[in-house]
Amino acid sequence: MHSQRFYTLFLSCPDRVGIVARVSGFIAEHQGWILESSHHADEESNRYFMRVEIRADSLPFQLAELCARFEPIAREFGMDWRITDSEVKKRVVILVSKQEHCLYDLLARWQSKELDIEIPCVISNHETYRGFVEWHGISFHYVPVTADNKQQAYAEVERLFDESSADTMVLARYMQILSPDLCRKYPGQIINIHHSFLPSFVGAKPYHQAYQRGVKLIGATCHYVTEELDQGPIIDQDVIRIDHSDSVEDLVRYGKDIEKAVLARGLRYHLEGRVLVNGNRTVVFR
Amino acid sequence: MHSQRFYTLFLSCPDRVGIVARVSGFIAEHQGWILESSHHADEESNRYFMRVEIRADSLPFQLAELCARFEPIAREFGMDWRITDSEVKKRVVILVSKQEHCLYDLLARWQSKELDIEIPCVISNHETYRGFVEWHGISFHYVPVTADNKQQAYAEVERLFDESSADTMVLARYMQILSPDLCRKYPGQIINIHHSFLPSFVGAKPYHQAYQRGVKLIGATCHYVTEELDQGPIIDQDVIRIDHSDSVEDLVRYGKDIEKAVLARGLRYHLEGRVLVNGNRTVVFR
Amino acid sequence: MHSQRFYTLFLSCPDRVGIVARVSGFIAEHQGWILESSHHADEESNRYFMRVEIRADSLPFQLAELCARFEPIAREFGMDWRITDSEVKKRVVILVSKQEHCLYDLLARWQSKELDIEIPCVISNHETYRGFVEWHGISFHYVPVTADNKQQAYAEVERLFDESSADTMVLARYMQILSPDLCRKYPGQIINIHHSFLPSFVGAKPYHQAYQRGVKLIGATCHYVTEELDQGPIIDQDVIRIDHSDSVEDLVRYGKDIEKAVLARGLRYHLEGRVLVNGNRTVVFR
Amino acid sequence: MHSQRFYTLFLSCPDRVGIVARVSGFIAEHQGWILESSHHADEESNRYFMRVEIRADSLPFQLAELCARFEPIAREFGMDWRITDSEVKKRVVILVSKQEHCLYDLLARWQSKELDIEIPCVISNHETYRGFVEWHGISFHYVPVTADNKQQAYAEVERLFDESSADTMVLARYMQILSPDLCRKYPGQIINIHHSFLPSFVGAKPYHQAYQRGVKLIGATCHYVTEELDQGPIIDQDVIRIDHSDSVEDLVRYGKDIEKAVLARGLRYHLEGRVLVNGNRTVVFR
Repeated sequence: MHSQRFYTLFLSCPDRVGIVARVSGFIAEHQGWILESSHHADEESNRYFMRVEIRADSLPFQLAELCARFEPIAREFGMDWRITDSEVKKRVVILVSKQEHCLYDLLARWQSKELDIEIPCVISNHETYRGFVEWHGISFHYVPVTADNKQQAYAEVERLFDESSADTMVLARYMQILSPDLCRKYPGQIINIHHSFLPSFVGAKPYHQAYQRGVKLIGATCHYVTEELDQGPIIDQDVIRIDHSDSVEDLVRYGKDIEKAVLARGLRYHLEGRVLVNGNRTVVFR
Repeated sequence: MHSQRFYTLFLSCPDRVGIVARVSGFIAEHQGWILESSHHADEESNRYFMRVEIRADSLPFQLAELCARFEPIAREFGMDWRITDSEVKKRVVILVSKQEHCLYDLLARWQSKELDIEIPCVISNHETYRGFVEWHGISFHYVPVTADNKQQAYAEVERLFDESSADTMVLARYMQILSPDLCRKYPGQIINIHHSFLPSFVGAKPYHQAYQRGVKLIGATCHYVTEELDQGPIIDQDVIRIDHSDSVEDLVRYGKDIEKAVLARGLRYHLEGRVLVNGNRTVVFR
Repeated sequence: MHSQRFYTLFLSCPDRVGIVARVSGFIAEHQGWILESSHHADEESNRYFMRVEIRADSLPFQLAELCARFEPIAREFGMDWRITDSEVKKRVVILVSKQEHCLYDLLARWQSKELDIEIPCVISNHETYRGFVEWHGISFHYVPVTADNKQQAYAEVERLFDESSADTMVLARYMQILSPDLCRKYPGQIINIHHSFLPSFVGAKPYHQAYQRGVKLIGATCHYVTEELDQGPIIDQDVIRIDHSDSVEDLVRYGKDIEKAVLARGLRYHLEGRVLVNGNRTVVFR
Repeated sequence: MHSQRFYTLFLSCPDRVGIVARVSGFIAEHQGWILESSHHADEESNRYFMRVEIRADSLPFQLAELCARFEPIAREFGMDWRITDSEVKKRVVILVSKQEHCLYDLLARWQSKELDIEIPCVISNHETYRGFVEWHGISFHYVPVTADNKQQAYAEVERLFDESSADTMVLARYMQILSPDLCRKYPGQIINIHHSFLPSFVGAKPYHQAYQRGVKLIGATCHYVTEELDQGPIIDQDVIRIDHSDSVEDLVRYGKDIEKAVLARGLRYHLEGRVLVNGNRTVVFR
């Protein structure tokens, strides 16, 4: 992370000769100073992935013009691309249920500016954390979810998210399964933390499943949400060692530490434009 | 961690034949049900370390009588020993400076009862977290420390700690060096989190030192405070991988995650009586 | 691991009051010096697991008499139990196919006496490592396995194992699936290393499966072989971090390092009597 | 690692606008197909580091001409640079003393072509591994080192290394300290594995030092050898968890696993031209 203002260009396109030359030639031509540059050629999909950070004050124009001038190159190479500005804060809506660890962790990072984002609101299907959230000066919305009101509840979540002009929705141990419509509407924008080392122990009560199978490590997985439960592209994962003396309650407790660390790391990669989706896999330019 | 009430006996004594037999014989004689039992024979110091959890309702008497009856055995074997009751909550005073991550983390664990402790107060040399601490219903004491008032300031810390009837003082990234007197007065009761993998990078600015040396992993160390800075018995440590692209600021950021995890783990071991000091080393019955 | 000769008693039995007292009382009565003592009370199965190392020269009699005298206690408590002698080397037969890493690793540990075992023979369905194995002074048996001769081949493996008076069979990346009969005949004696973090990626080509799923860590699992493929009790597991730039071939390469480390660790735990099977889970007294 | 033949260009130079554009422009101009591309701008030293793999068959000329044509660009930017050919195997001389684990490990990787290198010879100050090395068809040179013959012994090591036309010398737990002259003569070509997590426990008996300090993790460090003992640029490090029950002998045993893994990883990075020295630190383009 750099202290100067910078633009981040990230793109993917069919691989061919000359991509780097064309992009870096364009940047150099305008005296753009490259702070960081990451590349990946995926041999299986024959796609090229690239991410460049350019010091804003090295360029003779602003973001809008940078985009306008880059557009023809992007068209020529058939690029999926975006350029973001490090001074425009990302807007992140957090959904939470009854477990506090990810929420506390994200708000700690937010208030110390380690995560330099806006949190327009927190949405929960329980009232539990209203006080804590509001004390931080963040809006709290209680949207209960029952067997009967799901459609309506998710419509409300959608409305609040849109109204917030948010980029990203984080399911910080939100224990409801979002509707397929919602998942489809925001591809690559909804991040979930699943409390197992996927693909092991999909679905409910993964720590119980892990205990029954007698595994010696448990984990957590941060992934983009897609229509298929726990099947979306994985952003990050981690594990922690357990042993025979640990009960299911111990696994739950250890797991929380992994969950919050993996979620924070994955969210950060996402917000910094380091995650590029490649089919059901991800390129993560750490 | 067990749901039933239990007593925890922990002891160390010179190693000899018959210690386990005597202790477990005593427990069995009173129909004591052993939930957990840990042992360590240290060949170097020729000392035996033992920790047993006994279900409280399996014994026909209360803690006071248990202690009274065990006392002759302890004397016979020259034991350092204690018996604690899982229903008597430990009392922990937290000292903090300007960094928030350990404080947020500990309060999150406290409010979810993952750390089932009393926090009589938080002491800080800055006013920064008064609001946050008081919002949780915990007393906050501002005790400024300057070059001139150290003696007086530490006297105040000592007074607040004693007044709190606390068992344990946690330096949760408290950036002042306690006086030797204070360290001596509470041996094995003051826990610090140092932001390096000790014994590397003792003292100030360990992340800068780590950056300059070009290490590929950074770490944190939870240890008991003694008079010698960063030299006390180590309770737990952990590390995280970094690489050449990480600046000092990145190390600081990554390090926070390790610091809070290691501190929480070490504190928990300590509170559950799993840490027995053996010279300048520790036995940790995980 | 201790330098003196010692006996290792390990047992499991229904949990009740007085097990430790009875066992340690018996040891103390004969002046037995306990070097190491490990305990686990499994709340789910209500079973007690225990492992004790006793210095051989502290007892006034030999192993046979120790067993004879312990037998009545074992009967009283309904124990599954065994006592082994650290001076009697374990006998381990290694099965291998075409990959060399686990074989080299095990023979390196054997020749340096880190693994202080006898290797009566290595069995393989390929001739590839005959020279290497025989150079070490170990017998090598080529037992080809084809679609047609499986029954006969496994009969030969069984004969060689029995003839070797071996305790343990290690599948060191042996790429054939043993017959159910063989698996049933030696419960808790056949150890396999599977090249995934089970239960993810059971069966063939786990690294390809891992690559396709886009996981961020890959692993290996050391487990006892049972009739059900890759479903036996897990002894140890570990993982290693990968990223988008790693091809399937890279995963295979990284995986080898985890495989050999996990197999060596799991095998050692097994040989030292540190692994007690508890249903389909294991107690591992590390 | 790619299956096709490729050239690897790696360079460092003072940072300025246009480096990537110039290098990638040059490659594109000759239809060079980029397989992999890594970049690092070091803000402290204001130096740019770059590594590119180019498919050999995409270029219309051979390595010599590639170098000749690139030379003017290198001169213009003041680059330290090299271009290597994936078909020219690296030549690695291994030095070993009495411990076998790194030697077995490296030869296993060599014979399976995981490490696709030439090993012209193994040099040792003990005869212990002559048979093992020669069985693999590799020359073995016994060069004893005593208090009196050091100068002569190191001259012989130097002669053997030069005669082998080797690129790299690996100290695979070679327990002698090379002469300053030798260290100075081959900067960035001699790789050592030190059996501690540097900078902790420099010098002799690091596991004893670690045991005495009571650390909870032990490690190993792969680094370039410089005149100052254990102070050279670090290539890779790793750690493993230990606890109070582990004796010094246990640490030694655990440590071996970390040593061989870290050495193999570091050596591979080095051989693939992924390690660029930056003062006393390294850029490692994993």
